[in-house]
Amino acid sequence: MPATGLDVIGVGNAIVDVIAHADDAFLAAHAIAKGGMTLIDGAAARSIYEAMAPGVEISGGSAANTIACLASLGGRGGFIGKVADDTLGEFFRHDLRAAGVEFDTAPLAGGPATARSLINVSADAQRSMSTFLGAATELGAADVDERQVARAAITYFEGYLFEMPRAREAFVKACRIAAAAGRKTAITLSDSALVDRQHTAFVEFIGAHVDILLANEAEANTLFESDRFETIAERARALCPLTAVTRSEKGSLLIPRGGDVVEIAAVKPERLVDTTGAGDAYAAGLLFGLARGFDLARCGALASLAAAEVIGHFGARPEKKLDGLAREAGIL
Amino acid sequence: MPATGLDVIGVGNAIVDVIAHADDAFLAAHAIAKGGMTLIDGAAARSIYEAMAPGVEISGGSAANTIACLASLGGRGGFIGKVADDTLGEFFRHDLRAAGVEFDTAPLAGGPATARSLINVSADAQRSMSTFLGAATELGAADVDERQVARAAITYFEGYLFEMPRAREAFVKACRIAAAAGRKTAITLSDSALVDRQHTAFVEFIGAHVDILLANEAEANTLFESDRFETIAERARALCPLTAVTRSEKGSLLIPRGGDVVEIAAVKPERLVDTTGAGDAYAAGLLFGLARGFDLARCGALASLAAAEVIGHFGARPEKKLDGLAREAGIL
Repeated sequence: MPATGLDVIGVGNAIVDVIAHADDAFLAAHAIAKGGMTLIDGAAARSIYEAMAPGVEISGGSAANTIACLASLGGRGGFIGKVADDTLGEFFRHDLRAAGVEFDTAPLAGGPATARSLINVSADAQRSMSTFLGAATELGAADVDERQVARAAITYFEGYLFEMPRAREAFVKACRIAAAAGRKTAITLSDSALVDRQHTAFVEFIGAHVDILLANEAEANTLFESDRFETIAERARALCPLTAVTRSEKGSLLIPRGGDVVEIAAVKPERLVDTTGAGDAYAAGLLFGLARGFDLARCGALASLAAAEVIGHFGARPEKKLDGLAREAGIL
Repeated sequence: MPATGLDVIGVGNAIVDVIAHADDAFLAAHAIAKGGMTLIDGAAARSIYEAMAPGVEISGGSAANTIACLASLGGRGGFIGKVADDTLGEFFRHDLRAAGVEFDTAPLAGGPATARSLINVSADAQRSMSTFLGAATELGAADVDERQVARAAITYFEGYLFEMPRAREAFVKACRIAAAAGRKTAITLSDSALVDRQHTAFVEFIGAHVDILLANEAEANTLFESDRFETIAERARALCPLTAVTRSEKGSLLIPRGGDVVEIAAVKPERLVDTTGAGDAYAAGLLFGLARGFDLARCGALASLAAAEVIGHFGARPEKKLDGLAREAGIL
């Protein structure tokens, strides 16, 4: 890889997380699906926020978290996503850049505010997200910089954005650039309800454009219309060169086309505090390893290590340097 | 105390903290005094923030932290302080109200932004604060609600604001209201350099208006112009009915006029993560106990317990309910 290259560029929602503790009664009273992600409008964002406990604000967004983790692993990352020209947007941009990530997407002026995700964390560390997307949905093809995408070994798409027509155009543009430059693409499915709503479009997009597919079990079941692993593996191999299925504390499975399934063990965290960002961190380890040409077992070990760090504290971005942890563990 | 009364109302800076890790080289490069609080202008706030590591935003402000801790102890608290009409101001207001605190000061429109404190936390848990005061300095006598102050057993002033001429008028107005209602007043000195700059004015204000004085050792040495404890105690008794001197891990000393010094042990925290807010939490325990008529040893024990909780994590406001911890410890 040339010195000016990137390991991974992420395309996703530019979101600031607002994180607080909540009990199940609070989730029920506000019709918040425990463990899920619900899109809300500005009015709902105000009423849920008003009722929430005191919180902390910390930059988030699924693909942005992944790229921040990738940088912490020592990878070179870039990000494409839309903030507004406001304080939250400044925080988001600062935190990505301070993590060493290239982030040059122009902020939105005169439109909705920077996106925020109201994250209520239960005593069992599950996070329930109510997300107001605001400026993030205004991402479009014009925000995809051809030279930047061509410099990245892997372009990584956040599934949450797939439902937005303008963002989907941006995805397709980036895929064409990546293909023309001989680069790879990856996508995370983000949410099983979303996969259900956009099933045909996802299958077509992945089949046509995607080299690396990331999904948790629920998302994989929905996409491949089965809960039998043999069926899922067969259909995954038919659809995509490499599929990763994450299974929380049971670890993950890597399914390469034309190769055996590689089982990856989970790494037990020191403390289980907040599962926000576990999947994002997993993606960082996997994509970093793939961009560097590591074998699948080593990619998976990096992925599990990154996920374990992130669930040990509040917030989806690493507190400890992941490259140091990976060296201690003998993976880097 | 009547049902509509308050234990303590705080008058202080309405500030959102931006907290990140930093090493000593970073502090040196940006001329940040380790362990201290430096006031900065908007330009310095931008340049320091640009260079800082990724951070979290969490509501702060010395007296506001104290009132949030007081609410966590089960006390009824109010706060008077100035935010701007912006996102950070919304966070600040939300977090205090969500903690159960009365906070009705009108936001500033069309002036500077809500105050922020850039807090760089060293590996040894020391915090170095670079504070842009923005809207917080616009607090004035008109923001002091006579009925609200008259309802509070203790009105508590943040020393940081004492230097602002309009805020000092607000302090004097609140003292007159408290005196007329037969209530008590308290002040924290906040910073020894500030005490040095405003020495005569502090001595006059405390002698004329203040019942309870809080200071750390450096501030007490500066105010009483001595580092001999006997001299400090003698001068403290002459100036003020009750003086509390905090001494970090050595605990604290309560000096009542006409009574013996009461030595209070520090409570060792489970982990030492971030000393931001230790003094604020101490003040909460002390003032809550005094408002409820507890003896000095019990007030001090509550103060030490609150401080220990807050230094065990990032941020100056309690993560665990302090009343539960105090009950476990047999103090409540």
